[in-house]
Amino acid sequence: MCILMLNKKSITMINPQETKSYAKLKELSQNPFDLTAPNALSPQRINTMKLSAVGFDFLYATQRITNEVLAALQQLADETYAVDQYTMMMSGEIMNRIEGHESENRQVLHTASRNIFDDLACQYDCRQADAVKKARAQLKRLKEFLDELDSGAIRNTQGETFTDMIQVGIGGSDLGPRAIYLGLQAYRQNGRRVHFISNVDPDDAVQILKEVDLSRTLVNVVSKSGTTLETLTNERLIADRFIQAGLDVKKHFIAVTGEGSPMDDLEEYLRSFYMYDYIGGRYSATSMVGGVALGFGLGYDNFMEILRGARKMDLNALKRDIRQNIALLTALIGIWNRNFLGYETLAILPYSQALIRFVAHLQQLDMESNGKRINRQGKVVEYDTGPVVWGEPGTNGQHAFYQLIHQSNTIIPIEFIGFRQSQYGGHFEFNGTTSQEKLIANLLAQSRALATGQKCCHPNKFFPGNRPNSILIADKLTPFTMGALLAYYENKVAFQGFIWNINSFDQEGVQLGKLSANKFTDHFRAKAADANYSGAEKDPIGWAMMKSAGNELK
Amino acid sequence: MCILMLNKKSITMINPQETKSYAKLKELSQNPFDLTAPNALSPQRINTMKLSAVGFDFLYATQRITNEVLAALQQLADETYAVDQYTMMMSGEIMNRIEGHESENRQVLHTASRNIFDDLACQYDCRQADAVKKARAQLKRLKEFLDELDSGAIRNTQGETFTDMIQVGIGGSDLGPRAIYLGLQAYRQNGRRVHFISNVDPDDAVQILKEVDLSRTLVNVVSKSGTTLETLTNERLIADRFIQAGLDVKKHFIAVTGEGSPMDDLEEYLRSFYMYDYIGGRYSATSMVGGVALGFGLGYDNFMEILRGARKMDLNALKRDIRQNIALLTALIGIWNRNFLGYETLAILPYSQALIRFVAHLQQLDMESNGKRINRQGKVVEYDTGPVVWGEPGTNGQHAFYQLIHQSNTIIPIEFIGFRQSQYGGHFEFNGTTSQEKLIANLLAQSRALATGQKCCHPNKFFPGNRPNSILIADKLTPFTMGALLAYYENKVAFQGFIWNINSFDQEGVQLGKLSANKFTDHFRAKAADANYSGAEKDPIGWAMMKSAGNELK
Repeated sequence: MCILMLNKKSITMINPQETKSYAKLKELSQNPFDLTAPNALSPQRINTMKLSAVGFDFLYATQRITNEVLAALQQLADETYAVDQYTMMMSGEIMNRIEGHESENRQVLHTASRNIFDDLACQYDCRQADAVKKARAQLKRLKEFLDELDSGAIRNTQGETFTDMIQVGIGGSDLGPRAIYLGLQAYRQNGRRVHFISNVDPDDAVQILKEVDLSRTLVNVVSKSGTTLETLTNERLIADRFIQAGLDVKKHFIAVTGEGSPMDDLEEYLRSFYMYDYIGGRYSATSMVGGVALGFGLGYDNFMEILRGARKMDLNALKRDIRQNIALLTALIGIWNRNFLGYETLAILPYSQALIRFVAHLQQLDMESNGKRINRQGKVVEYDTGPVVWGEPGTNGQHAFYQLIHQSNTIIPIEFIGFRQSQYGGHFEFNGTTSQEKLIANLLAQSRALATGQKCCHPNKFFPGNRPNSILIADKLTPFTMGALLAYYENKVAFQGFIWNINSFDQEGVQLGKLSANKFTDHFRAKAADANYSGAEKDPIGWAMMKSAGNELK
Repeated sequence: MCILMLNKKSITMINPQETKSYAKLKELSQNPFDLTAPNALSPQRINTMKLSAVGFDFLYATQRITNEVLAALQQLADETYAVDQYTMMMSGEIMNRIEGHESENRQVLHTASRNIFDDLACQYDCRQADAVKKARAQLKRLKEFLDELDSGAIRNTQGETFTDMIQVGIGGSDLGPRAIYLGLQAYRQNGRRVHFISNVDPDDAVQILKEVDLSRTLVNVVSKSGTTLETLTNERLIADRFIQAGLDVKKHFIAVTGEGSPMDDLEEYLRSFYMYDYIGGRYSATSMVGGVALGFGLGYDNFMEILRGARKMDLNALKRDIRQNIALLTALIGIWNRNFLGYETLAILPYSQALIRFVAHLQQLDMESNGKRINRQGKVVEYDTGPVVWGEPGTNGQHAFYQLIHQSNTIIPIEFIGFRQSQYGGHFEFNGTTSQEKLIANLLAQSRALATGQKCCHPNKFFPGNRPNSILIADKLTPFTMGALLAYYENKVAFQGFIWNINSFDQEGVQLGKLSANKFTDHFRAKAADANYSGAEKDPIGWAMMKSAGNELK
C-alpha cells in the first residue's frame, strides 16, 4: 500500500492570519461555548464530540467549541494545507528551513524510523526511502547486538553478562528515552536496568555511579554531533571511574552518534549505532537514540511494539477530516485556545504514575519546536505561537496546583491522559471500588468540575468553570500505546507548527546561551591561571558572585 | 532575645490597588528598565542590586527594575503591612480566615516547628508558645524513636534492623519531604533508604513494593485528617502485601496524623507522631510530616540542620528594609513582574540535579497558596494573583524549553538557583574547567543572555532580551541550605499573599473535584452491582468512555 504519494503539488506557506477561517474564528471567539450553562454537557454532546483512533478515545466535549468552531478549524487546516505539509514532511521534503535565509535546510524524517513494517515497493520513489532503509539497517544491527547480549556471546572480562545500562545524553538524547523507559518499567526484562545521566552537574553522575556495579554496566553515549558539552564531560567522568576500577572502557562503552562524527570510532567503543541529521533530537526517541536503551531494558520485541504504535499513529495523521485525525484535531483545539481564547499555558495531566517524566519530554518537544517568533519566511509573527507546557501526574496534582486551576482568574487549558486498566493489575478494592476505578473517577470528575464549575453563595465555594479540557484515554499503557502516544504528540506539535507557519525543527534560540557560557568558562580558566585576575569588566555577574563567596568556586 | 513582640497594632487589610505605591508602580511600569541598552548591566548595577543573607546571595540586576521601582516596592510593602502581617502570622494570629464568611479560622504556625533553638522566655506570652512546646515534644519523641532504631532496640521479628522506609502521603505529605530527601541524598545514612508512594494509581505502589524487602521496611503513613482517600487506599494495599508476606503490620507501620484522628491509634501502629491544624500540608515539611522520613534517611542531626536553616531564614523575614529581607524582596519583584509587567508564569530553574523534585514542591506551595480569586473579605479581586510555577533543573532545561524562553514572544520571568560547590565534590576537570565550573558558567551565561539579548541581522539569530531573571546562589546544598531555601520560598509565598490580600492558607478549590469524584465512584459501585445499569444520564462522560471501551474498567 502506497500512502505517501507525492503529488508534486506546490504549496504556498502562509500565515494563519491570512486565511478566511482565521477571521471567522476571531468572530466566533467573541462568544465561546458556555460549558457552565444548564445541560451544556449533554450525553448527546459528549457522544458526538469524541474521536476514536489507534486504541485511543479523545473526548473534547469539555472544550469551549461548537460544531461551527469545528467547521472553521477544519477550514483553517485546509487553507494552511496542514495534512499536505505533514505528507510532504513524511515524504522527505526539506521542511526544516527558513526561506531566503541561512538555515539548517534539512529533511524531517523521524517518521521513517518507524515506517518499517509495510511493503515499501512504491515508496522507493520517495525521498524517504533511503531513511527507511537506514532505519531498518540500524534495527538489524541492534537486534544482533541485543541477541549477543542475551545469549551471553558478549560478556564482561569476568565472563558475566551485563545487567545495567547508563544512557549518557541530554535534551532529546535523554528526555524521550527516559520517559518511555519509566513509562514501561512494568515491561522491563528480568535482571535488566537502565539509568540516565544528563546534567553537567557532577552530582548527577556521581549519584548514579554509586548505585551500579560498573563491571556489569554498559554505558550508552548519545550525541549526534559527538561534541555536546554535557555529554562529553560526563562520558569522560564516567570513563575515569571505569579506569580507576581497572575496567576496559572499550568493552563497556557504546556510541549512538552521527556517521563520521568524532564519536564514530570503533577503536573507542564496543559498538556504535547511527543517528541522522534528518531526525531532530526531540523527535528521535524512535530512532537508535531510544532503541539501544529501550531494547536493552525492555527487550527488542517491546521496542518494535513501540515503533508499531507510533507508525499507526502516523498513518492516522494523514486523514483530512479533523474529526478523524486525532493529532490534527488536538492541534487545532490548541490553536483555538492559544490564539483565539488567548490562553498562554497548557497543562498536560496524565492519570498514570508511570508517565511521571513524560510531560518533561512533551515540554521539550513542544516548547523547543514551537517557541518561535519568526515564520518560515524569516518575518516576525504577530500572533502567539507555542504555549508553556507543564504538568504532573494525577491524582497527585489534585493535592498540589489544582487550586489555581479551579479558582484563580488565570485560565489553564488541560489535556488529561488516562488508561482504563493499570499496568500491574493490582486489583486492590477498598470501600467498594478498586484503586484504578478511583483513579479514573478522579480524572472524570476533574474534567467535568473544571468545565461546569459551581455557582454558590459562599464566595470561597464559587467555581467559575469554563476551564477548557479534553480527555485522551486508552485501555492500558503498553509499549504499543506508549509509541502511539509519543507519535500523537510529535504529530500534534508538527501540525501546530505547519499552521503557525513556523519552523518546528530548528532551535536557534539555544545558541546564544552556549556562546555566552564559553565566555564564562574562559574566565574561569584565566582565573585559575592567574591568581590576580579579576575579570570584573568582562564578567561582572560572575565576579559579583565569586567575590562574595568566601569560598571559591569548586 | 525576644523577636516576636506583639505590639497590639491593629492592621487594616487592604487590596494592593488601594495603596499609593500601586498607582506609582503602574506609572513606572510604562517604561521598565531596558536590560538590552548598552552597558545596562554595569558592574556597579550588579554589585548594588545584590542582597546577602543566611548564606545566600540574591542577584537581581537582571530584573527590569530601577532604584525608583525598588523604592515604590518598599512603599507597597509598608502600605500593606507585609512584615507586620508576617510577624502576626509567626506570633499566632488567626491568619487563615475569610472575614465575614465561614472559613477555617486557624492560626498559621509552621514557623513554630523550627523555632526551637532560642530561649523562649518572653515568647511564652505569645500565642505561638504552645506550638513551639508541641514541636519540641514531637522532636524529642522522634529522637527517641530514631535512637531506638539506630541502637537496634527496635527490630523486625527476625531480629534484623530496618533499612527502608516508605512514606505514604500525597500533596503536602509527599512533595516537600520527597524534594528534600532527593535534594540531600548525598547526606544519606549508610544502609538507609526512603521511598515515597502517593498516587492512588495502583502502579505507583506496586512499582515501589517490587524494590524493597518488606521484612526490613517501615511504612510511614501521613495524613492530618486520617481520611485522605489516596493515602488510606495505599495504606490498605500495602498492609495487604505485608499480611500476604506473613508480616505483622503493627510492627512496621507508623502514623503521622492529627491528634484524635481515626489514625491516632497505637493499637494499629508501632509509633505515632502528631501534626497540628495550624500547619497546612504544603507548609509542613519541617514538622513531623518531614521529620520522620528525613530523620530516618538522613539522621536526626541533619534534620535539625534543616530546621536551623529554616529558622535563620524566618528571622531574616522580619527585616523591614526590602534590600535586606530576601524573601520579601523576591516576593515584591514577583509582584512587579506579575501585576505590573503582566507576566503569567514563573520558571524556577535550579542548576542542581539534586533539586529535581524541588520545583514540584514549589509549584504546590505557590499555586495552592496563591491561586485564589477572592480576597480576605470574600470579594473577587480585580488584579492577578499567583503565577503558574514550573521548571526543571539546568543545564537540562537548556536542551529542552529554553528555546521558547529566549526567542518566543511570550515572556517568562525566571528565578535561577545555584551552588558554588557540588555535593559530592567530584572535581572532574575536562577541557580546562571542572564540571561544577561548567554548570555555574551556564547559569551565569543564561542569566546574562536572557537579559541582554542579541541584536543581529539574521532574523533567526535575533534575541529580543529583556527576559527578567534573578540568581539565588549559596556555597553548597547542605541540610542547612536546604532548610533555608525551603523557608525562603514559604516566606516569599506568604508575603505575596499578604500583599495581594488573599488567604494563602486555605484550599477550597480542591473540594469540588473531591465531591464530584465521589459521584463517579458511586456510579462504578452501582455498575458493579447491576450488569444492566447504564448511568448514562448521571455520568455521560464516564458512560461515553466505558461504552466504547471494549474492555471494562479494571
